[in-house]
Amino acid sequence: MSSKIEPRTLKGFRDYPPALMLPREHLLEQARRVYRSYGFAPIDTPALEYAEILLGKGGEESDRIVYRFKDHGDRDVALRFDLTVPFARFAAMYIGKLGTPFKRYAMGPVWRGENTSTGRYREFWQCDFDTIGTTSNAADIETGLVIHDLMLALGFESFQIRINNREVLNGVLQELGILDKAVPILRSLDKLLKIGRDEVIAEMKTTAGITDEQGAAVLDITSMTGTNTEILAAVRERFPNCDAVLSGVAKLDELRQVFETNGIPASRYTFDLSICRGLDYYTGTIFETFLDALPKIGSVCSGGRYDNLASMYTNQSLPGVGASLGLDRLIAAMEQLALLPTTATPAPVFVVQFQSERLGDYQRVSRMLRAAGIGVEVYPEAKKVGQQLQYAEKRGFRIALIAGTEEFAKGVWKVKNLAKREEITVAESELVASVRGLLA
Amino acid sequence: MSSKIEPRTLKGFRDYPPALMLPREHLLEQARRVYRSYGFAPIDTPALEYAEILLGKGGEESDRIVYRFKDHGDRDVALRFDLTVPFARFAAMYIGKLGTPFKRYAMGPVWRGENTSTGRYREFWQCDFDTIGTTSNAADIETGLVIHDLMLALGFESFQIRINNREVLNGVLQELGILDKAVPILRSLDKLLKIGRDEVIAEMKTTAGITDEQGAAVLDITSMTGTNTEILAAVRERFPNCDAVLSGVAKLDELRQVFETNGIPASRYTFDLSICRGLDYYTGTIFETFLDALPKIGSVCSGGRYDNLASMYTNQSLPGVGASLGLDRLIAAMEQLALLPTTATPAPVFVVQFQSERLGDYQRVSRMLRAAGIGVEVYPEAKKVGQQLQYAEKRGFRIALIAGTEEFAKGVWKVKNLAKREEITVAESELVASVRGLLA
Repeated sequence: MSSKIEPRTLKGFRDYPPALMLPREHLLEQARRVYRSYGFAPIDTPALEYAEILLGKGGEESDRIVYRFKDHGDRDVALRFDLTVPFARFAAMYIGKLGTPFKRYAMGPVWRGENTSTGRYREFWQCDFDTIGTTSNAADIETGLVIHDLMLALGFESFQIRINNREVLNGVLQELGILDKAVPILRSLDKLLKIGRDEVIAEMKTTAGITDEQGAAVLDITSMTGTNTEILAAVRERFPNCDAVLSGVAKLDELRQVFETNGIPASRYTFDLSICRGLDYYTGTIFETFLDALPKIGSVCSGGRYDNLASMYTNQSLPGVGASLGLDRLIAAMEQLALLPTTATPAPVFVVQFQSERLGDYQRVSRMLRAAGIGVEVYPEAKKVGQQLQYAEKRGFRIALIAGTEEFAKGVWKVKNLAKREEITVAESELVASVRGLLA
Repeated sequence: MSSKIEPRTLKGFRDYPPALMLPREHLLEQARRVYRSYGFAPIDTPALEYAEILLGKGGEESDRIVYRFKDHGDRDVALRFDLTVPFARFAAMYIGKLGTPFKRYAMGPVWRGENTSTGRYREFWQCDFDTIGTTSNAADIETGLVIHDLMLALGFESFQIRINNREVLNGVLQELGILDKAVPILRSLDKLLKIGRDEVIAEMKTTAGITDEQGAAVLDITSMTGTNTEILAAVRERFPNCDAVLSGVAKLDELRQVFETNGIPASRYTFDLSICRGLDYYTGTIFETFLDALPKIGSVCSGGRYDNLASMYTNQSLPGVGASLGLDRLIAAMEQLALLPTTATPAPVFVVQFQSERLGDYQRVSRMLRAAGIGVEVYPEAKKVGQQLQYAEKRGFRIALIAGTEEFAKGVWKVKNLAKREEITVAESELVASVRGLLA
């Protein structure tokens, strides 16, 4: 007996068997379709880059998590840890040739050597889309429409896109005379959903050194409830002379109007003046998306507007807006909501190999169905029919086709509905229509 | 002025801008559709694995090309250099649960730190499909059918699948009394297309120590021409008592019959007894696929039958058959044949933002078209129409839609055919039908 190598994967990495891969491919396909329908074009960048490209502005945090090593040429290289930094490098190199505005999507794995205790993986997929080279609010509004269509395309009807604008937040802090403490204040505010109002105010007092009253004022304004129109009216009324607030509110209001003209139900988006993700990066509109059925898993699609994508690599200013779909979080959500398919086959029809000398006919009939867009698997061995049907049921095939000498003589096929365990006999000329009817 | 990091990619790695990504996504989509239509299910494995898993049987060659390093936990890890070794590891771990036969496809990047002088890249995509857990020739034949359908789906009408069976080759060598020298003989034979008959015989004499006559005999048999039926008949006639030859010929003949029943034109497949790729790996049927227009670029889809996929990791025998699509080679071929699209947009329709206050309407009408499956991009800024149309033409949009106060008052849209520079005016209620007609 030869000694074997123990088959195993690295901690934090996982395999995708068909039952996980089929939903992942489905989600990616839907995202691709929606992105493309708005004119976003695909790009891809290498998994491996010069470490200085990826870590340019990285602090200790990214240094710690990035997979970095010396390659065969002794180059200092690293695996990408997101799709944004490589996109910035890409934009700096090609934007002159590509022209602006430039709308791209990118989908692919990224790697982070993070703690895996929370169920996070060290390899996971990102799925981003961005419009760069324009400061127009039209691009921000479109980003919101894309998120909306994306969620519907992924099979979610009940979700809420929370939308804010950093100009409003900054204006409010300015008016309250605490703009210089924006960073610690917003860092605490960002935890509102998690730790609640009182804890947030307490933390702001400690970390930003503001008063109870100032903290309460920030919370009062950012926690305003009401219809989207009411929220905007209230902020406008409270700060009628603050340019930043008015500019931010006007942009949110324009979004509201376009959403209305486009028939987006008001229940699917809320202005939430408390959200402020990505403190150092986002400068305008901000998006987060929550599933009504599973708000606790956090935002499944987030993003916003930034002033300058590629300042690390070029003097050309590249403002933009975009968002990222949380693919793994969505798959986890679908698992929890029992939305994942139970089949392990991408083809619904199974052909029993009843007589091996009839293989040509089994493939020929499968070919007819495939030409009609119906996937068909032919069992590779002429095993007992019972064994073959057992395999078909276990994999989740919906229909089995069987024919032997008798059927071939008559030009018919037995069509077995595997779920209902019903069987009919159909002329070969009617087979495609019959199968299509059963699958519908 | 802050100092910038020079934006660049590593030698041997490349970015995929839209003009390259659109065809790559198209090829992957077609391959996915064909694989699925035969019941192959998707799987994925991590990019990073324990080095011992990937290099288990690797010699100096793979050691030299594999990206290998120590991770944060001081584990000896490496980037996958193909999709076969990880699949073997995957199969060893899960085949008990998944059951056999198991049909999978896998698509993804692999990394090899090879010499890039020949135009090879250090990161490239593989696109494999395999049926494991069966020795049935039905699976081999199906592999050939999949290759055939794949090539058609990718847009190639003129191609040739060359098919051999290692049993025939081994039988011939056995009959000639030189089976013990199979490895050097076949290694030379593999170069037939490149260096020609005389060179191959000369090399065989040197490396395998066989005579001129033996070399000539090997070449005579393996270079036989004629129809597929004639070739098989001739081999059968020459070695009527050799079990290996007869078994291999019977399998090829069964393939021929099934191909015929399935209406595969005889011009698209040839029995070529000289092909023997993957000396140590393939044991039965062998496939190579050549484009009639570009035979010199080599096989674009190759594979075959192997005895045991996962012997490194498990005692369970896992015979199988499969093939791999040469994605990058195909894209290079499409480039040479001018089959690549000239557009850089996935959406054919462009909406001019004529009046910014009408953004809601521009998105609303785009929405109508998107719902009908037609991709639409709305320009994000209300720039001069000429500038917007210039952008649209440069990107390769086919149709532009324009409406301002006058058109909105009448409920019509100007529909501009960008290629023909023709413009018509269409009622909004007719817009979807009109655009669909122009795109057809």
